[in-house]
Amino acid sequence: MKFVDMLKARWRAANTLLCVGLDPDLARIPEHLRNGADPFFEFCKSIVDATAGFACAFKPQIAYFASAGAEDSLQRLIAYAREAHPAIPVILDAKRGDMASTAHHYAREVFERYNAHAVTLSPYLGFDSIEPYLEYADRGTFLLCRTSNASGDDLQMLDVGGERLYERVARLAMQWNRGGQLGLVAGATYPNELARVRELVGEMPLLVPGIGAQGGDVQASVTAGQAADGAGIIVNSSRAIIYAGQGEHFAAASRAAARIARDEINRYRRVPA
Amino acid sequence: MKFVDMLKARWRAANTLLCVGLDPDLARIPEHLRNGADPFFEFCKSIVDATAGFACAFKPQIAYFASAGAEDSLQRLIAYAREAHPAIPVILDAKRGDMASTAHHYAREVFERYNAHAVTLSPYLGFDSIEPYLEYADRGTFLLCRTSNASGDDLQMLDVGGERLYERVARLAMQWNRGGQLGLVAGATYPNELARVRELVGEMPLLVPGIGAQGGDVQASVTAGQAADGAGIIVNSSRAIIYAGQGEHFAAASRAAARIARDEINRYRRVPA
Repeated sequence: MKFVDMLKARWRAANTLLCVGLDPDLARIPEHLRNGADPFFEFCKSIVDATAGFACAFKPQIAYFASAGAEDSLQRLIAYAREAHPAIPVILDAKRGDMASTAHHYAREVFERYNAHAVTLSPYLGFDSIEPYLEYADRGTFLLCRTSNASGDDLQMLDVGGERLYERVARLAMQWNRGGQLGLVAGATYPNELARVRELVGEMPLLVPGIGAQGGDVQASVTAGQAADGAGIIVNSSRAIIYAGQGEHFAAASRAAARIARDEINRYRRVPA
Repeated sequence: MKFVDMLKARWRAANTLLCVGLDPDLARIPEHLRNGADPFFEFCKSIVDATAGFACAFKPQIAYFASAGAEDSLQRLIAYAREAHPAIPVILDAKRGDMASTAHHYAREVFERYNAHAVTLSPYLGFDSIEPYLEYADRGTFLLCRTSNASGDDLQMLDVGGERLYERVARLAMQWNRGGQLGLVAGATYPNELARVRELVGEMPLLVPGIGAQGGDVQASVTAGQAADGAGIIVNSSRAIIYAGQGEHFAAASRAAARIARDEINRYRRVPA
């Protein structure tokens, strides 16, 4: 099954556009897990199980695992999520960007070693740096377009001949998307640009980080980003969900936070005619 | 000691601008090592020892280790290179690019876990995505500017108001370089743009991939990239050196290839007045 079809099926079946971001920081993992054999896995597994009913996707951020040498935990986590929640795609947030044989090795890392359904990539090196990922026909690839941070402006808002660089990236993604595997990353903190990206890309899936701890407005970003059918967006929240509670009851708190986030997102969805 | 001072000292002391790129692909590692306990480490260690006399830097490419789950080998390799060849900086080619706490985790990965002297990063997310790396005052950071691949044009050659995007990145790097930690990546396959980057950045170190297997012209790129003092560039060759020979004598062949590359680069260096 192609990634985009899996995603569409999940949006519909679970009536949710919420993506649960998995950014496990050892210092914030509850104490009763922190000293166990595999705190990264146990913490994320509990969050995954607790929030699955409200999630259209899970998005582990590889930096949190890599900084701690916890690649094995990440592998174990993705394998577990695929087994326990087979209808929910896993997007590995890795923002890779390299060329030729190196890009092939990165693609092998994300799609074979970690077996993620999709990955995030930087567009700075252009099409041939994306191609090796597209060889995996059933997997998805999200290109950074308009990121949610303040300095995103430095490059992304440059005028490149009557349009901004992020708009050019969106149009390039449409050209490059022959196999229907591409999506874009456009942050909730910039709803005007998110709306513009939606205008440019039709129904292409948009990964929308920036609600929750980053302060992006849910109403504005759902209104701006949704496709004509009221779906098309994967609205990510990480810290506001995974650190919603502390101590032994952290998973129940994350479940409650995920339910609230799902409902808030759904409140602003367009109902197709 | 600051990264840039270490690099300058090495350029001078060893009279070399050659960087040995470590891209170990298991399928190309000689058979007598391939079935050993740690083929990635043993292969790269032999290359490092054989080529050290001709190297101003080593550049392991993390994708080759990550695709094989060989992070431990990479850690071991960098620790070994630091111990056995303490005057030669190790640049971890990782092309990371992310923001806020995620960028801090990536910085911790490259500078604490792997203990690299320098790293490569993507500029697409702007200054605040670079800052967490600059907090490590003695380490270096190379931003992608003009990459050596054909599709580099897609974004990097866009006109952003009277200059190309790669030129803007070079000028931004000059602004962002308050602590003297930044360098740029500019490929040998585009000597005209390499010359332009040099014009824009004064003495800033340039990492120049693309000679050897990628076909960049040594004379053209050394002429274009060198600073006024005949140094300023780190000219990387990976496959042409590490796969110069086969079988049991691979290290001797890589040593010979490194010597030839070093000499060829030096032939075109300007001698300062």
